[in-house]
Amino acid sequence: MTVTKIAVLGAGSWGTTFAKVLADCAADTDAETVITLWARRAEVAESINDEHLNPAYTRDIRLPASIQATTELLEAVRDADMIVLAVPAQGLRPHLTQIKDELKPGVLVVSLIKGLERETGLRMSEVIAEELVIAEDQVVVVSGPNLAMEIARQEPTASVVACTNEDNAKKVVSYCNPSYFRPYTNTDVIGVEMGGVVKNVIALAVGMCDGQNLGDNSKASVITRGLAETTRLALKLGGRAETLAGLAGLGDLVATCASPLSRNRTAGRMLGQGKTVLEIQTEMKQVAEGMKSAKAVTQVARSNGVEMPICEAVVRVLEDRLVVKDMANLLLSRDLKAEVRP
Amino acid sequence: MTVTKIAVLGAGSWGTTFAKVLADCAADTDAETVITLWARRAEVAESINDEHLNPAYTRDIRLPASIQATTELLEAVRDADMIVLAVPAQGLRPHLTQIKDELKPGVLVVSLIKGLERETGLRMSEVIAEELVIAEDQVVVVSGPNLAMEIARQEPTASVVACTNEDNAKKVVSYCNPSYFRPYTNTDVIGVEMGGVVKNVIALAVGMCDGQNLGDNSKASVITRGLAETTRLALKLGGRAETLAGLAGLGDLVATCASPLSRNRTAGRMLGQGKTVLEIQTEMKQVAEGMKSAKAVTQVARSNGVEMPICEAVVRVLEDRLVVKDMANLLLSRDLKAEVRP
Repeated sequence: MTVTKIAVLGAGSWGTTFAKVLADCAADTDAETVITLWARRAEVAESINDEHLNPAYTRDIRLPASIQATTELLEAVRDADMIVLAVPAQGLRPHLTQIKDELKPGVLVVSLIKGLERETGLRMSEVIAEELVIAEDQVVVVSGPNLAMEIARQEPTASVVACTNEDNAKKVVSYCNPSYFRPYTNTDVIGVEMGGVVKNVIALAVGMCDGQNLGDNSKASVITRGLAETTRLALKLGGRAETLAGLAGLGDLVATCASPLSRNRTAGRMLGQGKTVLEIQTEMKQVAEGMKSAKAVTQVARSNGVEMPICEAVVRVLEDRLVVKDMANLLLSRDLKAEVRP
Repeated sequence: MTVTKIAVLGAGSWGTTFAKVLADCAADTDAETVITLWARRAEVAESINDEHLNPAYTRDIRLPASIQATTELLEAVRDADMIVLAVPAQGLRPHLTQIKDELKPGVLVVSLIKGLERETGLRMSEVIAEELVIAEDQVVVVSGPNLAMEIARQEPTASVVACTNEDNAKKVVSYCNPSYFRPYTNTDVIGVEMGGVVKNVIALAVGMCDGQNLGDNSKASVITRGLAETTRLALKLGGRAETLAGLAGLGDLVATCASPLSRNRTAGRMLGQGKTVLEIQTEMKQVAEGMKSAKAVTQVARSNGVEMPICEAVVRVLEDRLVVKDMANLLLSRDLKAEVRP
């Protein structure tokens, strides 16, 4: 029996949890799988190896002993059959540059990252294929209504595994389907990634409603119209409407907006209470990705002729060009009209 | 200037709140409008007339003094230019039978009611046109992410006003657009009504997840798949996908499922905790419409060849043919497969 080697890069909540998903799946199937989790900080790697805990990110969840943590990036990826990326979106490219000469031919690269590269507006799968000089169909994206702590607690969760080559998506599925995690394949990588990117920006807008003490009616409208503008953009870029109506679009958006603990919604709430971007960055330990990707989203939308009034309003608040209390008015202020253009 | 006479039948939370919306709109526009609110119980009518309060349904909200309450059904509808219906779905037809001989020719009838008639499977607008023997395009449906108490507190809210004749929808909009309530017209009555009907059943399923202590990932999946099966049914019946992706579909579903106070979600939570239908009916004062419409929804779906696994599971729990703790397994148990049929 051949041994499969999987590297997970990034030991935050989602990377650590996904390593657990892989390890639990291997245990369920008696597969010979070695899972190496790369952590930037030595104390995180030590705690995972010695105590099987990563308290800063997955609290009291006991991790499978089969997960080996390391701080050596090249050691983690050497001979890996599959590399899972769970580093912050804006720090992805420098990591790729470091590992590109160590890749095994035909390696599958899985992205758990939600964001657009700020300088280029590229999706994460595009950054990966470009920087690693690999084929688009070697890159697989996992996205869905996946609050990491719930999965770490083994609560039943569904997700989407997307690749332009469905066989590669199925291969990844075979490594990540323990009883509590149910992945569905999809070939619409563009739709899946754009759903994950824009939901962070919409979650900021929903958080702003919270911060302004607006109710569930207003928030439901922002979610509905937010998904509509996300779908318009994804369609224009070549994605499919069904994907955005599915788990990686609507599902992810609803899970994020339902959770008061979501980073983006929390950051939005602080903005809604009148705090500045600088105050929020100082106060929050983890990154709210929507604050970083919002501008890139609106730039991609503009250059493709797509109207995204909610994302535009979020960017204007972030750039201090719109007072947050005027945002609700702005969102409800358009003239009375038909809901759908006839 | 001609005086417009509007009757609102039903002084529960939504009927009372909508009467306030109409009265505030008339005050904003200096329109000569007489609004009569019919209440079944004399003490409710008296409290509205004497104290401008309806404490059982809209708590401490002060109602406009221009709203006249009465317990005389025929007096309320006599000479009315517009009749707004806000009675329970299963009690609608007997009310219509009583008023049918008092209608002014060309009257507009507005339905705020979400449900299917159990015996016939008909939508409310169909019951109205049939029983009153009026044209389909005299019936207008209002539906959206409209938790009544938030609107009563004048929190900004959007909604959909649907009629096969868009001019009639616009006429209704002209009577119900105070600053805090923003109605959009739509001509897809089928889609708007089916969104409102099925969301109550999906809210029961989400409540069952609560009762079983499942997390936001699971609930987001139920919402996503629930909207997908609602959309399949609405399309089959002649509705439009955009309507279900809009405020009366996704928006209403998200608002209901976000609110822990929603009747249907509360009833679902009790079912999830193992209570029987009889115990819930005894414990809850207000009706959970989803419990009454669920069976009719699945019957309409079956006779149209549409699969609705979530609604079917809810019906099986309601009829005691499925143990609620097996429901989550059932919903996640299908074989690994593609999310969207290619």
